Amino acid sequence: MQFKVIQQSKKSRARLGVIKTAHGDLHTPAFFPVATQAVIKTLTSDNIKQIGFEGVLANTYHLHLRPGEKIIKKMSGLHQFMNFQGVITTDSGGFQVFSLGSGIEHGVGKIAKIFPGSQSIKPSHFKCDRTGSEMVRITEEGVWFRSHLDGSQHFLNPEKSMQIQQDLSSDIAFAFDECTSPLAGMDYTQKSMERTHRWAERCILAKSKIKNNKQMLFGIMQGGEYKKLREQSAKFIGGLDFDGFGIGGSLGRTKTKMYEILDWTIPLLPNEKPRHLLGIGYLEDFEQAIKAGVDLFDCVYPTRFARHGIAITAKEKLNLNQSKFLTDKNPLDKSCACPTCQNHTRGYICHLFRAKEITGQQLLTMHNLWFFKQFIDKIRQKIADGNL
Amino acid sequence: MQFKVIQQSKKSRARLGVIKTAHGDLHTPAFFPVATQAVIKTLTSDNIKQIGFEGVLANTYHLHLRPGEKIIKKMSGLHQFMNFQGVITTDSGGFQVFSLGSGIEHGVGKIAKIFPGSQSIKPSHFKCDRTGSEMVRITEEGVWFRSHLDGSQHFLNPEKSMQIQQDLSSDIAFAFDECTSPLAGMDYTQKSMERTHRWAERCILAKSKIKNNKQMLFGIMQGGEYKKLREQSAKFIGGLDFDGFGIGGSLGRTKTKMYEILDWTIPLLPNEKPRHLLGIGYLEDFEQAIKAGVDLFDCVYPTRFARHGIAITAKEKLNLNQSKFLTDKNPLDKSCACPTCQNHTRGYICHLFRAKEITGQQLLTMHNLWFFKQFIDKIRQKIADGNL
Repeated sequence: MQFKVIQQSKKSRARLGVIKTAHGDLHTPAFFPVATQAVIKTLTSDNIKQIGFEGVLANTYHLHLRPGEKIIKKMSGLHQFMNFQGVITTDSGGFQVFSLGSGIEHGVGKIAKIFPGSQSIKPSHFKCDRTGSEMVRITEEGVWFRSHLDGSQHFLNPEKSMQIQQDLSSDIAFAFDECTSPLAGMDYTQKSMERTHRWAERCILAKSKIKNNKQMLFGIMQGGEYKKLREQSAKFIGGLDFDGFGIGGSLGRTKTKMYEILDWTIPLLPNEKPRHLLGIGYLEDFEQAIKAGVDLFDCVYPTRFARHGIAITAKEKLNLNQSKFLTDKNPLDKSCACPTCQNHTRGYICHLFRAKEITGQQLLTMHNLWFFKQFIDKIRQKIADGNL
Repeated sequence: MQFKVIQQSKKSRARLGVIKTAHGDLHTPAFFPVATQAVIKTLTSDNIKQIGFEGVLANTYHLHLRPGEKIIKKMSGLHQFMNFQGVITTDSGGFQVFSLGSGIEHGVGKIAKIFPGSQSIKPSHFKCDRTGSEMVRITEEGVWFRSHLDGSQHFLNPEKSMQIQQDLSSDIAFAFDECTSPLAGMDYTQKSMERTHRWAERCILAKSKIKNNKQMLFGIMQGGEYKKLREQSAKFIGGLDFDGFGIGGSLGRTKTKMYEILDWTIPLLPNEKPRHLLGIGYLEDFEQAIKAGVDLFDCVYPTRFARHGIAITAKEKLNLNQSKFLTDKNPLDKSCACPTCQNHTRGYICHLFRAKEITGQQLLTMHNLWFFKQFIDKIRQKIADGNL
């Protein structure tokens, strides 16, 4: 398994690359759709192939709780379990720790102001009657937390995260980190970052003890919106023997800040390794982030919006819950070649949403992901043409 | 449009036939999956083609309420609306009148004892706080009822049912009837049947006034479990100028009674027209009903069971909600060639149900319908081979 830069843009840090894995080549820049519970919600693995995604991202936290990594191991790992023979990435669980903890407490997501309330887990979802901050306790050793499913207590630390991801048998694993809140002050962000650095070393050590380990391991940089911390983290994590790097944690309060953070950190990373901007993004994020040197993305945005009736098109976003679409004979997007746009009208999809038929969610998920795939493919073409 | 008997069994009333429509040939005996709201719940119209169904049945009552037949007419009819170019049958609305009325009051379905509680609509689902019988008022003129969606008042009668089905532009329409309860006495069943007969004549007249009407119109026989009434109804409805016949209403309290009813009525019907046993059936019903002379079936059983986690296999029914399946690497049915059985294990589907992922419902719906399609195909082969 390895990463190769195929073409470096002369105008920016954008580049074409390929990650070679036991489950095929992943061409970068790439977007991973999110298969939280070993499924892209509403789709089958046949649909993923049909859209053409070379890889997906699954959530360690969710799969650890249900069905449990031991079950998936018995079922011969995630690829066999979900019957997806492409590249599977698993996250570290750190973002969920953030969501359960200070994300809830502060009511914020990865970018405080731009994605207000973007975290989907709220204190009211928990059976145990506690505020967000009491859902999670973080120590040097690791993290105690309560399951969002039943309030039961669990423990995650670097060693356990490595073991779980090994049992899940993903192609790319992430080092266990703490994703700090955008509202955390510099002191806490620094303290947490330094702990994440120590956890990163523990992850590398833990991984080295697992026999026949063919996983790639990506380290995650933290440091919040603080330049000094971000530079420290890029140098520290970038200096460790990881196969690639995640840019994690709070990305500040504005998109401008997010791009600043990319500009501070990416030049400090080894050029020959891939960079994953965790949990981003919106369509408008891709081009600029890729120019800043990002190779990989993942985000629930296209799939979550689809389930709420929002179609993403070249021109605009459409809310298919609105009755004005009931007699609209147009496809979602005339320029789109996805099965939904080839076969169905806005009117029919609108009817399905209003009639609470889940086929509507499925049709929109297919379209939104197809659209994202095409969007990234076009950016890759731009790089190939020397225009980015 | 016409029906042709291709082969008549010498051992029973079973026969192979074909209904020729503007939307292709429908080979009988056939099972219609139910597309209540112009969609087979959880599937796309591509999936219907993939399974190979030549026809589906949609519900007049549901489509009248949402999105409304005028919307579907504007969208160029049901075939265009749902992008299904096969045969579409619409029911008369009479069964829903039964479900809202005495079906609720009596707590029964089409076969009182065998399908207890099989109707899905319960009084508690209604916003207006009334018992079942007050949801519906039936007069000679037609039926007043309240919508199960919002309690709003609506009126259906033979003329309106014909107009709605014309606007929906189905290939096969049904005459408007009252489906009586298995617990109704002989007096009420007779009174209702005679009214259904008068409504049948009104349907034929109403249809004759619609210009360029290419729909086939099927009449519905009633008469409950009473031999005298069933024979009367078969002679009366069978003597009218319908293109085919539905066997409707209460089919008694046992399966034995249902087969008796078929034996009383079918010999009295014109042989050259198709017969549809409305709302039936289970797998075990098909062979005997086909031997009794039934050509067409529809039932929500395979799709509804799928959504509740029940897989129908050659050997048994499996409840995929049970955790014992979590590590089962077998497909639902080893002998099944459906995409679900080709691609996924019981373990994965079990995980999807336990994790409340709707992809699980979709995978089981695909399997159950595929299984039903194959099951009926095999019976057709048996007839062709002279073995039924």
